[in-house]
Amino acid sequence: MTSRAAVAPVTRLEGGARYADADLVTVEAPLRIEITQAGRAGARPLGLMMRTPGDDEDLVTGLLVGEGLVVEPAELRRLTVEAGDADAADLARVEIDAAVNLDARVGPRALASTSACGLCGRIELTRLDRRAGPAPNVRAEILAGLPARLRAGQPVFDQTGGLHAAGLFSLDGAPEVLREDVGRHNAVDKVVGAAWRAGRVPAANLLLAVSGRVAFEIVQKAAAAGVTAVIAVGAPSSLAVEAARVAGLVLAGFARDGRANVYTGEHRVV
Amino acid sequence: MTSRAAVAPVTRLEGGARYADADLVTVEAPLRIEITQAGRAGARPLGLMMRTPGDDEDLVTGLLVGEGLVVEPAELRRLTVEAGDADAADLARVEIDAAVNLDARVGPRALASTSACGLCGRIELTRLDRRAGPAPNVRAEILAGLPARLRAGQPVFDQTGGLHAAGLFSLDGAPEVLREDVGRHNAVDKVVGAAWRAGRVPAANLLLAVSGRVAFEIVQKAAAAGVTAVIAVGAPSSLAVEAARVAGLVLAGFARDGRANVYTGEHRVV
Repeated sequence: MTSRAAVAPVTRLEGGARYADADLVTVEAPLRIEITQAGRAGARPLGLMMRTPGDDEDLVTGLLVGEGLVVEPAELRRLTVEAGDADAADLARVEIDAAVNLDARVGPRALASTSACGLCGRIELTRLDRRAGPAPNVRAEILAGLPARLRAGQPVFDQTGGLHAAGLFSLDGAPEVLREDVGRHNAVDKVVGAAWRAGRVPAANLLLAVSGRVAFEIVQKAAAAGVTAVIAVGAPSSLAVEAARVAGLVLAGFARDGRANVYTGEHRVV
Repeated sequence: MTSRAAVAPVTRLEGGARYADADLVTVEAPLRIEITQAGRAGARPLGLMMRTPGDDEDLVTGLLVGEGLVVEPAELRRLTVEAGDADAADLARVEIDAAVNLDARVGPRALASTSACGLCGRIELTRLDRRAGPAPNVRAEILAGLPARLRAGQPVFDQTGGLHAAGLFSLDGAPEVLREDVGRHNAVDKVVGAAWRAGRVPAANLLLAVSGRVAFEIVQKAAAAGVTAVIAVGAPSSLAVEAARVAGLVLAGFARDGRANVYTGEHRVV
């Protein structure tokens, strides 16, 4: 588990001048993920991902939940993260309960990388069916104020300018979980994983705030976690709007300075 | 080939008020990619990617070049993109020359998603060996001015706030290729693909400017295209800096208003 920021030598150009200095950069490093199941031979590689070290257990858990590889808490038997060295990436070992039909769950997951196309013009409803739970209303002033609260809780960004943040907030706007990463999807995985590990998924009473823009995949992860709303500092994509509508999520963008644009679920914003 | 921006109904919250309006959002839509080779049965699925429609031939070409699946122009025999409908995603069909050992090339490509880890603490030199070519100097004032020129050539961003831009510029700062996409990697693939199709890769006399932050994967794509420098509006990650050093690239970040931070190759910035 290394630090989230590292010192890099830098030459600063300013007008016609230049001088040597040191700069803080966000750490990006590989994490390999392997899945095993009791009674099955060998480990199944799930991938090599780039991420900012820290909260790796949250990250991997959130990824598993977001991709639908684990559904019930008991299905995730064990999760350990081993630090690597100069010759080996950090390694997360996941043990899934033997009763889980992993092949059947990996199938839909492979959607994004095979020709088994579930995303062809229309949204595949199965993946986007928001986890059962109430769909509470969201107060407009809370919603518009979340990005400022997210930023206030983001210590590393101010140092490097290189981190995305995601946060889960209560319906009253209180921060419950904040996480950062060089990748915006990773930051979302981290907060979802932390919530899941705390027994709070489906997270119908939580709002997800993200520091950047919102494309389809963020909405997909939010739907899998069962949050009630996604609030972004930046712009949504067309497919994010479509997916949020299908999943029954409140989706807001450009939330800042007391303003916000609500793209879906506006009847639940009061 | 649909439009890059779409109209979405929106409820605007401002202070205590709310009103219905229309907003422009960036279009995000799936593109499926299949590879065939003469004399081989069946098509090999390369993936289903989310992208902003437009310049799809550039996008797919750039992806193939960046991933090392095609190296010489003659190896890419044919590339067609078919528009999908409500039941099928747009489809790019790629025909690779029969002489190419695709398995050997897909092997390294699979690095990022299998346990065959070439990125374990150290950078895999094979992938990052910058394409042969001269390593010209870069003028400091050109470098610091590129992001402004990139932004000036980015028409859709101003409408939606949802697009990343990438541009290839001459050593004199003249724009050669500009492309936009909802995904920053896609924007880079599009400019690399356009340059490749114009016979300009390896692009030793071109500078790559990107609108966002720079993580490892952008540097990897820049190295594969053989550009001489990567200049970003935002921050680089630690692994991007390390990779740029290994690949012999000039890497600059926070380039704006006549300033820039040069992280690697500072001896070539004059």
